[in-house]
Amino acid sequence: MNFVEKLVSASGKNNSLVCVGLDVDRKLMPENISVLEFNKAIIEATSDLVCAYKPNFAFYEAMGNVGLEALKKTVEYIPENILTIADAKRGDIGNTSKAYADAIFTHFKFDAVTVSPYLGFDSVQPFMQHKDKGIFILCRTSNAGAADFQSLVSEVDGKEMPLFEIVAMKAEEWNTNGNIGLVVGATYPEELKIIRQAHPHMPLLIPGIGAQGGDLETTVRYGVDSKGELAVINSSRQIIYASKEKDFALAARQAALTLRDRINIQRGKLKK
Amino acid sequence: MNFVEKLVSASGKNNSLVCVGLDVDRKLMPENISVLEFNKAIIEATSDLVCAYKPNFAFYEAMGNVGLEALKKTVEYIPENILTIADAKRGDIGNTSKAYADAIFTHFKFDAVTVSPYLGFDSVQPFMQHKDKGIFILCRTSNAGAADFQSLVSEVDGKEMPLFEIVAMKAEEWNTNGNIGLVVGATYPEELKIIRQAHPHMPLLIPGIGAQGGDLETTVRYGVDSKGELAVINSSRQIIYASKEKDFALAARQAALTLRDRINIQRGKLKK
Repeated sequence: MNFVEKLVSASGKNNSLVCVGLDVDRKLMPENISVLEFNKAIIEATSDLVCAYKPNFAFYEAMGNVGLEALKKTVEYIPENILTIADAKRGDIGNTSKAYADAIFTHFKFDAVTVSPYLGFDSVQPFMQHKDKGIFILCRTSNAGAADFQSLVSEVDGKEMPLFEIVAMKAEEWNTNGNIGLVVGATYPEELKIIRQAHPHMPLLIPGIGAQGGDLETTVRYGVDSKGELAVINSSRQIIYASKEKDFALAARQAALTLRDRINIQRGKLKK
Repeated sequence: MNFVEKLVSASGKNNSLVCVGLDVDRKLMPENISVLEFNKAIIEATSDLVCAYKPNFAFYEAMGNVGLEALKKTVEYIPENILTIADAKRGDIGNTSKAYADAIFTHFKFDAVTVSPYLGFDSVQPFMQHKDKGIFILCRTSNAGAADFQSLVSEVDGKEMPLFEIVAMKAEEWNTNGNIGLVVGATYPEELKIIRQAHPHMPLLIPGIGAQGGDLETTVRYGVDSKGELAVINSSRQIIYASKEKDFALAARQAALTLRDRINIQRGKLKK
């Protein structure tokens, strides 16, 4: 099963476009629980409600080897039928990107990864060569600084386009193995609409709803493909830190369920 | 001592602009030696000839926790007076970049880091806030794909400029703590010349000589500041894999010495 098939299968089985961001933060977690125990409890409570889990490497690296060991065991613990996305935003020259791809796909055994496009084709290619794995290229990120460079307009093939659209166009060109998707933040709905219209068949990983402020209904309307699929809508803090008390797993389940249902109501409206 | 002072002090003491890239690769190393032992031998053999060491995280991550443990001990082993640069090319939204900065500066205790600019100001700021640490922002990378996006021309303040020049201009604007430098590949000498002329006081980290093919004399001429300083010229494979036999450390010393002297001959010519 390749990456897109796994995504469609997971979102179909659980009737869900929800991705849970496993961005662990000791200050926000209940006390007296290890990172791995916390993640396991979150996964147990939500794995029938989501299509993907997306741990961000930064939070694990900040804990040193203890964190990275917990990350590896977390990936192992995620049920086989759910997509695992390494939010790593890597990107380096060819032989170095190859080592990153080995780390993420071979050592950690993730199904997919986020990569940064700044270094161009040969920085993405070593990831793409893992044909059964998925590569989400940063296109329009969800943060305030996104516009600093991603909105700069250049002329390509006689047409003026902002950088993030050029990145998406190039990503589509590079996508000969059918395993590339794009990261587009929910905080920029007009940009999300443009990208979905220009790339109707690419999976979109969409962060930025919830704590970051992206509107959910607009995100669903602009983000899904013509079948109401291929959008991976991420929520991190709003789900995993729904409660800091002993009931955190149950609270996470409730938050994931609410988000899934709100998304599905919107998907239902689109089908009409 | 802040980052720039440490760089000038290290390059002054050892009369050297050489940075050794500790990009470990088991296939190229002598057999029957651990990564840490290898790095220690290279450091012992070269630390009086260089201004900096630059391990690239990818090669350590690909080995899992064993690699990252070796990386941490390698940084500890590098003499206090030599600059340590984490070649990590990180960059994420604000709270996530903060976690990466913690990982690199607090956990691994590096003096400096490379970061990717694609996400804009708030992705770089958490690194900058470590005022005594250095941040080398990717500007013009040394690889073939660099031109894919970095050469795209946009208009800023009424002036047309390629993306890499805009990144450099923004980096200079952001540099209120005086701890930002730029990464400019030796494989693009004309671009290096442009960046140095536009930013006469910023430290430049210059990869791409040696195995990647950048011309050394041109690199020195275009890369140094008016005093012949503030260029950190990296060589990885050509130094650390100068020999695969038992004499690898001695061969690395000889290669570092040759490189330092070739650079200094060129610096001498510039002073005349």
